[in-house]
Amino acid sequence: MTGVTTGEGSAETAFRDVLIESGLLIPTSVLGIYGRSGVFEGVVMGIEDLVTRETAPDRPEVVRYPPVLPRRDVETSGYLDSFPHMTGSVWTLSGGEREAIELGERASRHEDWSEYQEQSESMLVPAACYPAYPWVAAAGPLPTRGRLIDIECYCFRHEPSTDPARMQAFRQRENVRLGSSKEVSQWHSSWIRRGTSILASLGLAVEPTPASDPFFGRGGKVLAQSQKEQALKIELVYPLHSRERPTPIMSINYHLDLFGTAFGIFTADGASAHTACFGFGVERITLALLKEHGLDVESWPAAVRDRLWPSR
Amino acid sequence: MTGVTTGEGSAETAFRDVLIESGLLIPTSVLGIYGRSGVFEGVVMGIEDLVTRETAPDRPEVVRYPPVLPRRDVETSGYLDSFPHMTGSVWTLSGGEREAIELGERASRHEDWSEYQEQSESMLVPAACYPAYPWVAAAGPLPTRGRLIDIECYCFRHEPSTDPARMQAFRQRENVRLGSSKEVSQWHSSWIRRGTSILASLGLAVEPTPASDPFFGRGGKVLAQSQKEQALKIELVYPLHSRERPTPIMSINYHLDLFGTAFGIFTADGASAHTACFGFGVERITLALLKEHGLDVESWPAAVRDRLWPSR
Repeated sequence: MTGVTTGEGSAETAFRDVLIESGLLIPTSVLGIYGRSGVFEGVVMGIEDLVTRETAPDRPEVVRYPPVLPRRDVETSGYLDSFPHMTGSVWTLSGGEREAIELGERASRHEDWSEYQEQSESMLVPAACYPAYPWVAAAGPLPTRGRLIDIECYCFRHEPSTDPARMQAFRQRENVRLGSSKEVSQWHSSWIRRGTSILASLGLAVEPTPASDPFFGRGGKVLAQSQKEQALKIELVYPLHSRERPTPIMSINYHLDLFGTAFGIFTADGASAHTACFGFGVERITLALLKEHGLDVESWPAAVRDRLWPSR
Repeated sequence: MTGVTTGEGSAETAFRDVLIESGLLIPTSVLGIYGRSGVFEGVVMGIEDLVTRETAPDRPEVVRYPPVLPRRDVETSGYLDSFPHMTGSVWTLSGGEREAIELGERASRHEDWSEYQEQSESMLVPAACYPAYPWVAAAGPLPTRGRLIDIECYCFRHEPSTDPARMQAFRQRENVRLGSSKEVSQWHSSWIRRGTSILASLGLAVEPTPASDPFFGRGGKVLAQSQKEQALKIELVYPLHSRERPTPIMSINYHLDLFGTAFGIFTADGASAHTACFGFGVERITLALLKEHGLDVESWPAAVRDRLWPSR
């Protein structure tokens, strides 16, 4: 299951080459794992700060998680039923001193040392909101008007690709709304407009598009169809490589009571909580800005720079 | 190899309990993996910005890496010879549709699904400077006066512990100096004073202490002894839990030509490059500040707040 996704082919590869030549992305020997230059990271931080300012009136609770979380929580979430092909689990030393020494010797010769590893209690975070659900569940029933959480995390998805927008390790900046179906569906709808407007203020004309997650296998097609028909997942897409196959740079997702039921999260009146989230793909938005306004960040339109870096 | 490190025992556990009760750290079901509150993260960001301002006169090149890097690079570094017990490798789906479905079903019942995983090309970053070496090597010989790189990364070490200062996933903010032995050893020495002074400006009285890395096994004891005798690793330690066993919150490391030789990094005149790095343990410094100045960040001394957040 290590096939390389190529997708748009030449347009993607050409843009990737330009990003690497300009030093904005630094390639490694693994497809989809890149270093980011200080300039690239400055744009990412500008987007993060803009989201902070735009959501400040909503007074979200802020929490940040590391890039690993308990394996048991991923199992509980149901993610492994739907996306077993995407996940990364963390493995650590199995055995004692003899095995540890053999591991080191084989590794120094670039030989196979996998037999000295065993599955640990941790996995890589698959989406930024996942660590929030067990935390919220442990706090007991939601307060009367539910909760709103600001979360950001490095996520991992195993899909090696030549498309610079399809990284294996990338950040999602999310807000998660938890409450009654009415509260959550209203919040979900409101973010289609708000998200579009925030991205438009950066000069990015995006199109809200009903979408589906890449559910695994034959059964997954049914799930994807249903998700699309109910408009549970809306992606804001930008023509990064082509107009025909634009790239999602933000997604707005209504989970119904999927996570409420899985993790045992209840509203104040005892119903299974509904949840929704939005996620800004901060690397993808950075790529879209570089595509739209050019590689020289200093020469971007003043209005865009003011939105990203108001105090500069 | 999943023994829990307990160390100072009651003092550590008591401080951990206080941090959790106050909401600054959010526990998970895995020891050493925590969520961070917005307040905690605000201190981390203040430390990061302070380091940026303090190192600005040195004009370092800025680069940021995700929390995973190519397995091959870790093998090349020699890390797996010395610390096979600390590493985390990333495993992903092995097999086709049948195995993927069985994986999901077992996971939903919290049963063992490890047989459907295979070792991927990636590992978790063991220390923030590791991704830099293959990048620098690929650029060819160093310029005449060497290079200075500003790097920060989420790192992983598999050492489950009740000590809140011994997290499995944590950030290191590093500068890495590469050049001749003279350039690098001078830079290394200068940071003992500079690091001590930066931490003192936050009200943290730290003690520079010759130290050694936790090399694995019997052979590791010899390496550790030699490292200490040559004063290659200096830790700035703070009495987080006790005066007898203070906690390192910054380390300043001279690698001699270890990485220069391993990765093939050469100076302008063709010698194997020497390298050194400093690393601020940003979570540990945050814990030290909470210990020193109290849990209520708003009531910290004005001089400390001005250093962390000059524009507030």
